[in-house]
Amino acid sequence: MDGLIMDYELNVPAILRRGEQLFGDKEIVTRLPDKSWQRYTYAEFAPRARRLAAALRKELGMGDGDRVATFAWNHYQHLETYIGVPVGGMVTHTLNLRLHPDDLTYIATHAGDRVLIADKVLWPLVENFRERAGFEHVIAIGDGATPDGAIEYEDLLASAEPGDLPDREIDERSAAAMCYTSGTTGQPKGALYSHRAIALHSLASAMAGVLSVTENDTALPVVPMFHANAWGFPFTCTLVGAKQVFPGPFLDGESLLEAFQQEKVTITAGVPTIWMGILAELDANPGKYDTSSVRAMVVGGSAAPQSMIEAFEKRHGLRILHAWGMTEMCPLGTVSELTSRERALSDEEQFRYRAKQGTPAPFVEMRARGPEGIVPWDGAAMGELEVRGVWVSSAYYETPEGADRWTDDGWFKTGDIVTIEPHGYIEIQDRSKDLVKSGGEWISTVALENALMGHPAVAEAAVIAVPDEKWSERPLAVVVLKEGASAADDELREFLAPDFAKWWLPERFEFVDEIPKTAVGKFRKTALREKFASAQPAETA
Amino acid sequence: MDGLIMDYELNVPAILRRGEQLFGDKEIVTRLPDKSWQRYTYAEFAPRARRLAAALRKELGMGDGDRVATFAWNHYQHLETYIGVPVGGMVTHTLNLRLHPDDLTYIATHAGDRVLIADKVLWPLVENFRERAGFEHVIAIGDGATPDGAIEYEDLLASAEPGDLPDREIDERSAAAMCYTSGTTGQPKGALYSHRAIALHSLASAMAGVLSVTENDTALPVVPMFHANAWGFPFTCTLVGAKQVFPGPFLDGESLLEAFQQEKVTITAGVPTIWMGILAELDANPGKYDTSSVRAMVVGGSAAPQSMIEAFEKRHGLRILHAWGMTEMCPLGTVSELTSRERALSDEEQFRYRAKQGTPAPFVEMRARGPEGIVPWDGAAMGELEVRGVWVSSAYYETPEGADRWTDDGWFKTGDIVTIEPHGYIEIQDRSKDLVKSGGEWISTVALENALMGHPAVAEAAVIAVPDEKWSERPLAVVVLKEGASAADDELREFLAPDFAKWWLPERFEFVDEIPKTAVGKFRKTALREKFASAQPAETA
Repeated sequence: MDGLIMDYELNVPAILRRGEQLFGDKEIVTRLPDKSWQRYTYAEFAPRARRLAAALRKELGMGDGDRVATFAWNHYQHLETYIGVPVGGMVTHTLNLRLHPDDLTYIATHAGDRVLIADKVLWPLVENFRERAGFEHVIAIGDGATPDGAIEYEDLLASAEPGDLPDREIDERSAAAMCYTSGTTGQPKGALYSHRAIALHSLASAMAGVLSVTENDTALPVVPMFHANAWGFPFTCTLVGAKQVFPGPFLDGESLLEAFQQEKVTITAGVPTIWMGILAELDANPGKYDTSSVRAMVVGGSAAPQSMIEAFEKRHGLRILHAWGMTEMCPLGTVSELTSRERALSDEEQFRYRAKQGTPAPFVEMRARGPEGIVPWDGAAMGELEVRGVWVSSAYYETPEGADRWTDDGWFKTGDIVTIEPHGYIEIQDRSKDLVKSGGEWISTVALENALMGHPAVAEAAVIAVPDEKWSERPLAVVVLKEGASAADDELREFLAPDFAKWWLPERFEFVDEIPKTAVGKFRKTALREKFASAQPAETA
Repeated sequence: MDGLIMDYELNVPAILRRGEQLFGDKEIVTRLPDKSWQRYTYAEFAPRARRLAAALRKELGMGDGDRVATFAWNHYQHLETYIGVPVGGMVTHTLNLRLHPDDLTYIATHAGDRVLIADKVLWPLVENFRERAGFEHVIAIGDGATPDGAIEYEDLLASAEPGDLPDREIDERSAAAMCYTSGTTGQPKGALYSHRAIALHSLASAMAGVLSVTENDTALPVVPMFHANAWGFPFTCTLVGAKQVFPGPFLDGESLLEAFQQEKVTITAGVPTIWMGILAELDANPGKYDTSSVRAMVVGGSAAPQSMIEAFEKRHGLRILHAWGMTEMCPLGTVSELTSRERALSDEEQFRYRAKQGTPAPFVEMRARGPEGIVPWDGAAMGELEVRGVWVSSAYYETPEGADRWTDDGWFKTGDIVTIEPHGYIEIQDRSKDLVKSGGEWISTVALENALMGHPAVAEAAVIAVPDEKWSERPLAVVVLKEGASAADDELREFLAPDFAKWWLPERFEFVDEIPKTAVGKFRKTALREKFASAQPAETA
């Protein structure tokens, strides 16, 4: 029986209409490359976004579903692209500034990007891949001379009227945006985002108890717009009419704290590294910054250490809100917003919960699969987290070999190893590829590392799986000792013993001067595995 | 280009799964007909809802899309029906306890209701229409003897297991619920609600800045579950895991205030009449009730007078949240939650805004049409409010003659005459059918009535349109004077003159002892029109 409800499409044009009609005088503020501030209103932003859409179609011949790449910092023109491109029926494809030119070439070519919109201040990087990627048109944003062969962004906007856009409704299941994951293995893979996924992600993000974003907020996304939709902030804010502040290229602690104070930012979001910089700046300059307007600092991308959450709150009265997501899920998965159950606990316990990944957003569902199948929600059994939901990818763009990331019944395998508590609180224990699979049971390398780094002589510790004839795999600990300190294998094993099952304890310890790390500071465990895998098989286990 | 997002259905089963998985120990509390309290948890509720669904299919032979009528107060069994029936693929059809048996017979017959689930305490009313409506099965809820020919609700639940339900996904566009509007003209018309509409309505209602409902809330819907989905509270609360409190048959001020205090209610919702009763009880018993837990009292159904909003806030520290909706829109249309713009105004101005209907919920759009077409958003031009959106009806159930309520471009004509401010704030000026259309311009009868009732001699005033040869229609004021007071036509006209255009002023005044009213206390203007229309045509205008 049909529900007899209007066929109203959940799409980006509807988000823009709402922002424009109800919140026309709300501000959008950008820090420009010269550190000055640019300000305009939603009423000015909306027709510019439509002009961009119209010009891309009329002047550059772009059509429905065509990909428009961006290579840009967070600023108002990037917002115009975020909204305008899908309003015109095309697809915004955000390119990651930090990738190697070979990867950028591969990604832009694979995605079939026809147009590139890029910052002039990034032009040296653009030149490294623009020719090879074969864009039909390159559009340059910002002050200064027009780069060779590029179209000025403002000239493009001036070439069309908002009314030039075709008047039609865009199917909510069509693509609005895309982003490639920079996996550590294999080629990058493209995740697409439908209009519907973005609209629902915006609604849910704005919910009380999730990120709780309203018109009264001033949001500053530090998370780059080239990284998983800047966690949806540009869309969510436009839907609810929040003031938006964009930091441009300035992501250091001092610049961000200046922006928080000047614009009275209420909610901001970024990866732990960013908050470490802010924490250092705050600690070094007591009383210098007024951060009293800030109600939430959302942390995602990688786990926020409990010590950081406590440091912000106890030393500076700032509240960290821990979230977890993935490029393949728009990206919001969970938010560690405490429920009445956790709020009834001690402060110490509450901090422990806030350092976990939290509970799933509405219309996102989770389960974890261990060696024996789906594991119980008991806070102890480990399993690989699988998700499904209304904004979760169903496939990578033109990548049939990526199909093994989905289960037969259609859930996405996240690659994260988690435990789930009885009420759905999730804690990430490891990455699937780092886990030690010993005798059919799983050992969390993260748990062993955190424990080892609590030993007074240990500066850093990475635990990896090494092949073992009897147990298939066993843990090996790679340890960097503190300057002048010493500790033997037995001592470290005894130090771990009270907290772990006997079969979790590493037989082998390797002492090194340094642990190789990735560009974002994570242990390069693949390098460690190559180095230590076969050197000295464990004798017993 | 396909968005490559999972086909995850926005349906009631997904709402139930979330409530059960994440909020199993949250409570659902009901006041039973004997005034005792029944309590259980979401973990107990969910399997019962599924048992009901399974039993209706397995034991009573109900299938997809079949209608299950309810005739019940607000209580946990009604919640089980709200959720369980659509989880089983059927459609919950709530019958209004206050309708005449002839109307109930018409509605149940027109809807094709196969089963009725009704309260035993309402059985005398049930007997007035059950035979004529021709239900195949009648199920009785509550303590006491089983009525003749009825099935015990608990026996029905015991006859099936939750696992008996077919394992399949329900199409989000199929019907989950229905409700008939009791229009003042013509036969009642049925509005259907799709699973998708209910899911999106729940998401949006829970948004910060709309009703802002979270797991930390305790919600008590006074608005009947037989009235427009109890404004969505049963679904919204189950999605977010809020504690739910149901008042059963006890809607008097004292009973409700007891419930607020005992259960620490944070949000409640009802029509103005209910709040008038509560205000009287609070005024009569200073300090008797602790209402400090209550953060919002949502008022809808008809306009909340500004004086009531101020009285609650100033005398009792209680915050009224004004909302507007319709049976044809799930029902939420607007909420008068102040934005930063209004919060910057004086207290007096803020109260004035809070007495308006507010701004539209996300993915609901509004416009107003006057005699010359769509009117500007200038806060002055009047027009009939038209709406479209993701939970707005596209048609009445099997009522082709109702098609004139939709425009050619698919917007729903609400029948409410409004003004819209530049930023989308809506204020209802009149009902379309009550409006005076004079010389091609519109005159708000509500505005004239409110002004007349400000005259010291006037107890009540109703303004109606009467036919006029020259101007098509002219206003006529029907006035009840206060005991012992007197006022002539000219005096009243002069009293109005400073605040209205000259052509708005009524030529004719009729003084009567009483104005006829409907069951819910509204003026019966159709009766007044019949009485006064032709009696004495205006000489000039």
